[in-house]
Amino acid sequence: MSHHVADFDHWIRNDFIRLNAELEALYYAQPDRAEVEGVGGELKRELEQRGRGFSEALLAEGNTDEGFDAAFDLLGNVGLYLAACRRHGLSDPDRDRCSPQAEASALAMHIAASIGVVPRFATAHLCTHNRAIDGRYKSFTELPDELCFIDYNSKGILAFKRAAEALMKTQSLGISHPITADLLAAAEQALLEVQASNQELFQRLDPARFFYSVRPYYKPHHVGSQVYRGANAGDFAGINVIDMLLGLCQGNDPAYGRMLVEKFLYMMPDDQRILRDCMRRRSLMDDFLAARDQHRSSWYQTNLAAFLRLCDLHGAIAGQHHDQLVHQFIVRPSEQMADKHMEQLTASGPQLAHLLKALTDLRDRRSAAPREDILTRHREVALLRQLLGASA
Amino acid sequence: MSHHVADFDHWIRNDFIRLNAELEALYYAQPDRAEVEGVGGELKRELEQRGRGFSEALLAEGNTDEGFDAAFDLLGNVGLYLAACRRHGLSDPDRDRCSPQAEASALAMHIAASIGVVPRFATAHLCTHNRAIDGRYKSFTELPDELCFIDYNSKGILAFKRAAEALMKTQSLGISHPITADLLAAAEQALLEVQASNQELFQRLDPARFFYSVRPYYKPHHVGSQVYRGANAGDFAGINVIDMLLGLCQGNDPAYGRMLVEKFLYMMPDDQRILRDCMRRRSLMDDFLAARDQHRSSWYQTNLAAFLRLCDLHGAIAGQHHDQLVHQFIVRPSEQMADKHMEQLTASGPQLAHLLKALTDLRDRRSAAPREDILTRHREVALLRQLLGASA
Amino acid sequence: MSHHVADFDHWIRNDFIRLNAELEALYYAQPDRAEVEGVGGELKRELEQRGRGFSEALLAEGNTDEGFDAAFDLLGNVGLYLAACRRHGLSDPDRDRCSPQAEASALAMHIAASIGVVPRFATAHLCTHNRAIDGRYKSFTELPDELCFIDYNSKGILAFKRAAEALMKTQSLGISHPITADLLAAAEQALLEVQASNQELFQRLDPARFFYSVRPYYKPHHVGSQVYRGANAGDFAGINVIDMLLGLCQGNDPAYGRMLVEKFLYMMPDDQRILRDCMRRRSLMDDFLAARDQHRSSWYQTNLAAFLRLCDLHGAIAGQHHDQLVHQFIVRPSEQMADKHMEQLTASGPQLAHLLKALTDLRDRRSAAPREDILTRHREVALLRQLLGASA
Amino acid sequence: MSHHVADFDHWIRNDFIRLNAELEALYYAQPDRAEVEGVGGELKRELEQRGRGFSEALLAEGNTDEGFDAAFDLLGNVGLYLAACRRHGLSDPDRDRCSPQAEASALAMHIAASIGVVPRFATAHLCTHNRAIDGRYKSFTELPDELCFIDYNSKGILAFKRAAEALMKTQSLGISHPITADLLAAAEQALLEVQASNQELFQRLDPARFFYSVRPYYKPHHVGSQVYRGANAGDFAGINVIDMLLGLCQGNDPAYGRMLVEKFLYMMPDDQRILRDCMRRRSLMDDFLAARDQHRSSWYQTNLAAFLRLCDLHGAIAGQHHDQLVHQFIVRPSEQMADKHMEQLTASGPQLAHLLKALTDLRDRRSAAPREDILTRHREVALLRQLLGASA
Ligand code: HEM
Ligand code: HEM
Repeated sequence: MSHHVADFDHWIRNDFIRLNAELEALYYAQPDRAEVEGVGGELKRELEQRGRGFSEALLAEGNTDEGFDAAFDLLGNVGLYLAACRRHGLSDPDRDRCSPQAEASALAMHIAASIGVVPRFATAHLCTHNRAIDGRYKSFTELPDELCFIDYNSKGILAFKRAAEALMKTQSLGISHPITADLLAAAEQALLEVQASNQELFQRLDPARFFYSVRPYYKPHHVGSQVYRGANAGDFAGINVIDMLLGLCQGNDPAYGRMLVEKFLYMMPDDQRILRDCMRRRSLMDDFLAARDQHRSSWYQTNLAAFLRLCDLHGAIAGQHHDQLVHQFIVRPSEQMADKHMEQLTASGPQLAHLLKALTDLRDRRSAAPREDILTRHREVALLRQLLGASA
Repeated sequence: MSHHVADFDHWIRNDFIRLNAELEALYYAQPDRAEVEGVGGELKRELEQRGRGFSEALLAEGNTDEGFDAAFDLLGNVGLYLAACRRHGLSDPDRDRCSPQAEASALAMHIAASIGVVPRFATAHLCTHNRAIDGRYKSFTELPDELCFIDYNSKGILAFKRAAEALMKTQSLGISHPITADLLAAAEQALLEVQASNQELFQRLDPARFFYSVRPYYKPHHVGSQVYRGANAGDFAGINVIDMLLGLCQGNDPAYGRMLVEKFLYMMPDDQRILRDCMRRRSLMDDFLAARDQHRSSWYQTNLAAFLRLCDLHGAIAGQHHDQLVHQFIVRPSEQMADKHMEQLTASGPQLAHLLKALTDLRDRRSAAPREDILTRHREVALLRQLLGASA
Repeated sequence: MSHHVADFDHWIRNDFIRLNAELEALYYAQPDRAEVEGVGGELKRELEQRGRGFSEALLAEGNTDEGFDAAFDLLGNVGLYLAACRRHGLSDPDRDRCSPQAEASALAMHIAASIGVVPRFATAHLCTHNRAIDGRYKSFTELPDELCFIDYNSKGILAFKRAAEALMKTQSLGISHPITADLLAAAEQALLEVQASNQELFQRLDPARFFYSVRPYYKPHHVGSQVYRGANAGDFAGINVIDMLLGLCQGNDPAYGRMLVEKFLYMMPDDQRILRDCMRRRSLMDDFLAARDQHRSSWYQTNLAAFLRLCDLHGAIAGQHHDQLVHQFIVRPSEQMADKHMEQLTASGPQLAHLLKALTDLRDRRSAAPREDILTRHREVALLRQLLGASA
Repeated sequence: MSHHVADFDHWIRNDFIRLNAELEALYYAQPDRAEVEGVGGELKRELEQRGRGFSEALLAEGNTDEGFDAAFDLLGNVGLYLAACRRHGLSDPDRDRCSPQAEASALAMHIAASIGVVPRFATAHLCTHNRAIDGRYKSFTELPDELCFIDYNSKGILAFKRAAEALMKTQSLGISHPITADLLAAAEQALLEVQASNQELFQRLDPARFFYSVRPYYKPHHVGSQVYRGANAGDFAGINVIDMLLGLCQGNDPAYGRMLVEKFLYMMPDDQRILRDCMRRRSLMDDFLAARDQHRSSWYQTNLAAFLRLCDLHGAIAGQHHDQLVHQFIVRPSEQMADKHMEQLTASGPQLAHLLKALTDLRDRRSAAPREDILTRHREVALLRQLLGASA
């Protein structure tokens, strides 16, 4: 690690957190908690200038060629800085034509291009690839609600990954293999863990604190002249691997495919590779449908039952995400927020209504709900359900 | 190759070309050659509908998993179709909110995501990866001027690649290695071929024919809801590899870095990999500067002389591209064109003036011209030139 | 799949199994069950000739370029054939200078080189990458004991992989991260599954049947002019990933390193990549040692406890493998076997005594046993154990 | 670069060379120049002990994880040391059961496994990946004849690579593409350079000096318990890419295939990838044969003529290598050498006669010579030659 890289990391893990935390305290103490303008000017200036200094030094140093891990980590630090600038109104896509943080933008673009991801912090930087030092990992504020949010995002992501890894291994065995049952069971176990951890998150996270002091760091912002949407907990391959290998969503469904396209560069390169690989695979659902003339075989009954349990669980988790998490932590608080802040609300750019529609559609695909207007596998799942338990 | 894939390919190589060629004949026969509206409605309808049919069938078929080459080739066919639709006004980013070719868009997005490139035809589809059958390769119209343009783009690209491949091999030998001289000579030879082939292109291509009947296929257009800029002969890694390994352009120069970021997904995955690798390398220029206390060594003199010849040549080719090709085939004809078409002019979206500015800056970087407003290596190249021939 | 590929696969899944099973019945009915010479000549001839025919046809067809999965699968089929030839004495490294199955050897070498693995069947072909059709996967004989052996090998491998996947994810979080505790718990869960499944295997598998009718297919044999050792259930990266990330074994320990070198080409390319990546990582043990001045932190106590449980479990499983599985299914039956067959005993080539020594060393490394003659982490583990529960 | 890595590199570039050079002077001054025993004991001891010291330190340091380039470079240094030990009789596969250089072996195995190559120095270490510092690159002795040999090996290899790169690019265009003619011309140009540089080597290199003072460093030797054959100038993918893409040699020809298998791990990983990719391609020869009903087309005549010139040239270079280089620098001097040294002669282990037979076969394949005992494309090339110039 070069001198500058180490200094910057140290700053991000200490003063940067302190500055953000102090600003959050000021904002939260106001009658209109969503107001950031005209508050904490000195703190903001310090934050912006220190980050600019580090960016300049690192940019001048040029590329130090220390491998992917180091580059990704440095990008995370620049990205956290840029996101904090945006959160404190030091950049604003509605106001600026390009990022006022020119040096940090240039640095982020250079690193990002050299490793094949978007030039902003991604979920992986805070969740799966966030090295702790003496028990403290990187965050914006170290507020309990931020840490809770990061921890439960991580738990959910890691459990989804476990489920995805189990499902991917079924591909080389096929639906009639005895060991496939073990893999489906492992996937089920992992999805149950997602469900449990989401439930805990729902209970532990304070909606107001989250809404006013955590979520604003996840907004879209400029890097250079382009606006990048906010990071979200879905920016990893596993969730889509599950969607597609179960067969509940399909890469050649235009709406779903568009979402995949959009997501790629927000994922780590390894996840990009995994997702690409999955896009060319057949789903378990299609395999069960194709083999339905063997539905009286015991392997068919055993494995189909396990498969349908997985589908149910995946649908239920999508419902839980939508009906509990999104509702409690975004929809409700936003209804109570002053209208003037509404535009800045969502992390992924579209207005809240658009976002909710997209999430509803996803939920309905994952739960194979009956829908006329979008592609869901309602009929296919129903058909398979009928084959279940059909006597021999 | 599946049945549908083969049929589509056959159509692209035959009727598609005929339809475009007939439409071009109609347009070109008009007083206002740039007018496409209200002309050849029947032909346009046939073109759009046949393409839609193939797209639907292929989309339904889902992914046939025949490897990268086959997927890239199919994407090329969908991409040529989408570009032709745009050329004939069947889509128009100024008019539409998303592509009217919904099926082709979905197909393109699915394939593109699964192989890691933009969902439109790229230069490689027409130049370096355009398989000929019985002497005929894919094109829009088979007009002599289109074939001339494709051939000389290919020649230029392949010679640039040869130069880049030679330069990359110097990285593991260093500037003082005797074999580095051979590699610099090979690079020089290749750049001389670029220069010669550009010169021939300049003489052979008909400006009006190119401007009115070829270039319009290279416009930005929608795929799904996003607009993708047009393909251009620069969408391969080699040119930037030369820029950066020579040291004339630098990845951590914000303006140049932004251009790289933007280009990545327009290149083939192998080219993306090459470019990424180069971004972390030191340039020959920096190596010569760092070793300048050895400038009296014979290796320094020999290899520096070869290096400076390469820089000169690279600058000269950038000048030739800008002052001859761009001027004669784009700037001049556009000055003569009816104002109402001006907006639709350039391949990459920005208005002509912006485009020219960007190309001027690139030319000045490549020729290490003295500029105050952008980063060029004018001073460094001048310094190195002074070291040349300094007596021992 | 080409015509020939499909025919060969069909043969392997049907007549090949039948022929092997009939031969096993003959052998097993003899007083000296280990005798293969002079038995079932007709069956052997048919087996050899059919396989030769398929190999010739496939070799002539040349490379059909259908991607890694298809190539790996075909290699598996040739490999099963070659292993069966060796089992039935149709090839014998002690007798032949090169494989009598010249065509199959050539085919295997061609495919293997083109995908980067050894030219023989590997464990993955029978376990993790053995596609079932209508509930039947590939095997040599379909004897219940062979299926039992394959199933429990698969279970063990897949559970080890789960443990390895969990441990690898700790690398980007570090030992002090709260989520690392979750990952260590997931690894523990997976190792408990290995242990349970090994125990079941121990109880279910018939030693004599295994020793006389299953194990002989796993002998070393020629492919072309080189002898390749037999496949074994350890030919995947996960087990060594666990060894090295826990820190119980070290890549720069000459004896252990030699074993890794030897294993690489017996693993699938993805596993090779994973193992390579792990060789450059620091182990959890080294991290805990380096941070021991923080042993009073609660994170240290929590995570160290989990880490030590993992070490214990990993050691216990190595003991179980050695003291139960190897002893019951190889050592004991071999003591009872006629001396004349002893040379042909082990799968990996060295005589039984050598093999046992290597396995004992591995077990002692994995259980951090006190040994003077080889490197184990006995002292380090003891030291860490002392830090556990040290009051604050 | 760690401290130890830098020290070792410095030693290899200075004292190591001096020690080897002094030893060579002693050997060469003897009546029996091939005798190494009993000469220069002190120098040998110093060489062995210094190398052992560095190896121990580096092994203890463990893996420093500085990326492929650094690892490959370090492996080269250990490899040069091991090869020098073997040259000076400090190891001898005929005498030892495993390498007496245990630490260096362990280090080499660790690094090699972690990057996927053999644990010894490969040609790339001395030729294409041998960084010069102030004009001096790594070598054993810096004797003029050694430098001459390295330089011309490098020239040959780099020119072969250029030819291969041009041929690979024809794959995505096909034999009937106009640009394919350019690529064939580029390949021809490169092969002419190989021919010219081999001719210069033939004239400049002193046979006795080469035979007695350079070649001995290229002998097979142990690393750990396994013997690895010597490096040779053919250990890169390009030569075989040319063989196979022209179609003169075929991957599914057992003898040729076996050679490929054997070579893989002696190549750099990138070359391994390239060669693997080529093994699944169709050759130009097969394409011309398949399209022979179009032999009256002008593209067929033009491109076939260029193709046949390439075949002729490739054959001629193989003849030149065999009849000039191998004959003058190995066969003749070895005939004059005392019989007692004969066993130790060749770099790849087999006795000289075997080696010559293998090289003769290769030459005959490459020149499409008429042979009954091995596969050559004599008839196919003759047939294509007849199609040339056939009037329309
Ligand atoms: C009729 C001939 C040509 C014209 C009119 C022309 C015009 C242009 C224009 C307008 C651009 C900017 C693209 C955009 O941003 O929209 C461009 C880019 C580029 N063109 Fe050409 N071009 C021609 C031929 C060639 C040839 C033969 C080559 C050789 C390979 C070439 C290499 C490039 C490169 C490398 C770029 C990317 C920008 C850069 O790095 O310079 N062009 N060209
Ligand atoms: C003093 C000059 C040279 C001598 C005596 C020589 C000798 C040999 C020998 C004996 C082998 C067989 C290696 C073995 O199996 O042990 C060999 C292989 C090879 N050499 Fe050379 N060589 C010389 C220079 C070159 C040069 C300059 C090239 C150009 C790149 C070259 C290319 C090859 C290739 C490609 C092979 C691998 C076998 C094949 O594919 O032909 N050699 N050489």
